[in-house]
Amino acid sequence: MKNLVPKNRSYRRFYQDCRIESGIIRDLIGLARLCGSAGNLQPPKFIFSCDSESNARVFPHLVWARYLKDSRGPSEGERPTGYIAVLGDTEITRAFGCDHGIAAQTIMLGAVEKGLGGCMIASIDKDGLRDALNIPPRFEILLVLALGKPREKVVIETLKPDGDVKYWRDGEGVHHVPKRRLDDIILDHP
Amino acid sequence: MKNLVPKNRSYRRFYQDCRIESGIIRDLIGLARLCGSAGNLQPPKFIFSCDSESNARVFPHLVWARYLKDSRGPSEGERPTGYIAVLGDTEITRAFGCDHGIAAQTIMLGAVEKGLGGCMIASIDKDGLRDALNIPPRFEILLVLALGKPREKVVIETLKPDGDVKYWRDGEGVHHVPKRRLDDIILDHP
Repeated sequence: MKNLVPKNRSYRRFYQDCRIESGIIRDLIGLARLCGSAGNLQPPKFIFSCDSESNARVFPHLVWARYLKDSRGPSEGERPTGYIAVLGDTEITRAFGCDHGIAAQTIMLGAVEKGLGGCMIASIDKDGLRDALNIPPRFEILLVLALGKPREKVVIETLKPDGDVKYWRDGEGVHHVPKRRLDDIILDHP
Repeated sequence: MKNLVPKNRSYRRFYQDCRIESGIIRDLIGLARLCGSAGNLQPPKFIFSCDSESNARVFPHLVWARYLKDSRGPSEGERPTGYIAVLGDTEITRAFGCDHGIAAQTIMLGAVEKGLGGCMIASIDKDGLRDALNIPPRFEILLVLALGKPREKVVIETLKPDGDVKYWRDGEGVHHVPKRRLDDIILDHP
């Protein structure tokens, strides 16, 4: 985890010629299957896309990188080659707690271990995505995980004293992400 | 991840004589520090306990294993030796999304890798815990991660056709957890 977590950055540019086999995606969802779930109810369900045609249907419904000037997301040629939508099955419960976060992080860590990477996206045109993937109304759309072979360098920095959390790209396209200092996220214990 | 995720079960009985050093807990929170966060806002903050006195103050405010007959939780001698409360800093945002799930799963996987284990608990007497750990009103209590060196065997089973998700303990104290089949959590893709 000490090696894996720092490598698990939010990647938004990919080698679009590197396809992801559906077996890989099923393996990743297989990790999520074993995750903890509140009351063991296991409401997260998944639908995925990994062929270029359905990937192209998914892409326009995602909102990318709000802090970057060009937030239309990756250009053609640098787009994700797989998507996993994390859904909440409302016939099981309507209280998903943070089950989707648990599942999503597990999938992303598994992806990084396999040389992939990606981005969790919560800003979604849900009606559009529902149409694109034919998702029945029973399922609430919670997150989309965009996956691929990363084509950008992402570096972690320490948040500056002004507290600005906005990530940014430098002239060479390196993506910089400011994170809070450890002492700023741990409260003094009594 | 293929090895780590199956080992990351919800453990509720521990070797209470195995203490956890605060440095270990800080390392685990250090993993959470690097996690993705919606809009990179990073609202999760943490407070922990790992000495027997403050552990004893935390314990009574947690609700354990609702499906077991004896849900008062682990007996004295088998209780967690560390707790991390995951808080939401309302001065940053009030919309925590699933950031706490992402952080919590990362911490739990890190703990398992270090030979520890535990349980994410969302059923919390929040007022009681706030008093016990002196948590300022600014912070919303989202989860408690109970940690220790696990003292029980947990096995995963496949959900039976009746769909009962309740975990159970057999005569030898082995804890059985039914999980949905992979094909039951993946929707047919279009």
